[in-house]
Amino acid sequence: MERCEIDAMISGIRDNRPGTLARAISMIEDEEPDSAHLLEGLHPFTGGSHVVGITGPPGSGKSTLTDRITKHLRKRSKSVGVVAVDPTSPFSGGALLGDRTRMGDLATDPEVFIRSMGTRGSLGGLSRAVYGAIKVLEAAAKDVILVETVGVGQSEVDIARVADTVVVVFVPGLGDDVQAIKAGITEIGDLLVVNKADLPGASRVESVLESTLNLAPPREEPAPKIASASAERDEGVEELLDLIEEHRNLARESGLLELRRRMRARAEITAILARRVSRHTEGYLSDGDNGWYRRLTRGEVSPGELAEELWSKLLGQESEG
Amino acid sequence: MERCEIDAMISGIRDNRPGTLARAISMIEDEEPDSAHLLEGLHPFTGGSHVVGITGPPGSGKSTLTDRITKHLRKRSKSVGVVAVDPTSPFSGGALLGDRTRMGDLATDPEVFIRSMGTRGSLGGLSRAVYGAIKVLEAAAKDVILVETVGVGQSEVDIARVADTVVVVFVPGLGDDVQAIKAGITEIGDLLVVNKADLPGASRVESVLESTLNLAPPREEPAPKIASASAERDEGVEELLDLIEEHRNLARESGLLELRRRMRARAEITAILARRVSRHTEGYLSDGDNGWYRRLTRGEVSPGELAEELWSKLLGQESEG
Repeated sequence: MERCEIDAMISGIRDNRPGTLARAISMIEDEEPDSAHLLEGLHPFTGGSHVVGITGPPGSGKSTLTDRITKHLRKRSKSVGVVAVDPTSPFSGGALLGDRTRMGDLATDPEVFIRSMGTRGSLGGLSRAVYGAIKVLEAAAKDVILVETVGVGQSEVDIARVADTVVVVFVPGLGDDVQAIKAGITEIGDLLVVNKADLPGASRVESVLESTLNLAPPREEPAPKIASASAERDEGVEELLDLIEEHRNLARESGLLELRRRMRARAEITAILARRVSRHTEGYLSDGDNGWYRRLTRGEVSPGELAEELWSKLLGQESEG
Repeated sequence: MERCEIDAMISGIRDNRPGTLARAISMIEDEEPDSAHLLEGLHPFTGGSHVVGITGPPGSGKSTLTDRITKHLRKRSKSVGVVAVDPTSPFSGGALLGDRTRMGDLATDPEVFIRSMGTRGSLGGLSRAVYGAIKVLEAAAKDVILVETVGVGQSEVDIARVADTVVVVFVPGLGDDVQAIKAGITEIGDLLVVNKADLPGASRVESVLESTLNLAPPREEPAPKIASASAERDEGVEELLDLIEEHRNLARESGLLELRRRMRARAEITAILARRVSRHTEGYLSDGDNGWYRRLTRGEVSPGELAEELWSKLLGQESEG
């Protein structure tokens, strides 16, 4: 791709053309060589959006809540980008496709851009794609970017950690909620929402959440808050939205916002370097006949020693080139 | 930790002392500095176990199946290690703890070692810990190592890909099974098991799986197989175990086993290098006052340029030291 094509793409993104946004995100997802240049070019136009992570266990109604939040944001005249990480691929619970279809009336709104992402082949590929998609939507000047992930697995937790505001969704009746809460949720969530608040047990979940927060060690301000909602019935969503905006404002004042963004930048830079290393090593460790695997299985060399060997090779190449 | 202490730990692991196994895995989980030396020291004693990944969506009964498989393996006089990746932490569905308790009668059997693992703080921390735990159990000469992960999220897919044999568990009635199957499951699973085979819809899931396999592009031999079981009723588990052993034998003959193990080794070496790079960069990108973040937010430098800068720094340090 020529430099001018990338420039054209960047201006298409800044003009919020849905086709260009979709194409750019696909480029990043597919890890096309030009995607790195694209992301570099987008960088100056990022940082203006409020990135909100929405996470929680399967069945907690995250997608419906994301849908509702999007609609209410539109009522407040905010433009919205949605990145729905669909971790159920390749094992689909089938929920997301249905939900995306349900968002149908939003799909024709030019101020709403919705993108689903599944797990990718390469290690860390999903996080990389999500980071990239956020950048694209930031450059398209979306006021709010909702990143919806299922609260299972390392990568989702990683993603949740780099949002400006993290909403964790709970529901009554999903197993042992005391266990759920013990396990460090207060480290992750800024807003803990009890969804399906009309179901029996909702108030119990809320009070368990409250006592957990009271017992938790102090963390950066603002302190996490608890809310309740029923996305299905469209109840409590306005209040939740107020809390989300309030969190952003308080986080900006307290310095938490900068801390989060610093972490996001750090993760991005580390990822670029990690890619660089794996590009260097991939060739050597592929099926080629340099015999590394034979030496390993024969016990002539350990994984650590092989890593050491590759490292020297890499430094050598670098200093030559 | 002194060299001789690590040696003592290694010999405790090789003697299959449960306390030592537990301590070693904790060291790896906590990323203690000595864990790298430990893993290097264990390497010569690895490679003899059959590593079986068991994955599937939440609610598919993976844990019960793992439990049953363990019991049947014991009847065949095989020693068993179980690494249960508990991705529901920090969002616990609560299933695993109960299941681990149910395994109670196995817990006193010295030939069975069970370890649960939650998500860890650092990026990629979980995969690293799982790889390490497998090594420890291999060095303890477990005949079979069962790695149970939930089929959601990138890291679980990554883990499933480096087992010798991958069992994917399906159940009737979990959403749109056609979607589930379309999404690349045939790339991952060696054995596709329809669990809860007594439930209505089980035969439909089986026939959808069959037609998907028929349509899938050819892959390395042996071809995936379909089985059905009811872990709850202890039905079909012997047959499944026969298929698991058969897969290992066929995979060894066809070269698939070597391919998988090569991939596992490659992932391990790449991870060691990635760690090395992040150790180098972590310091620079932490809160220190070198002003990288200020320069980034002011637009004086892009993430890619910062990565470049760090890279040169790193090369410089290396050639000095």
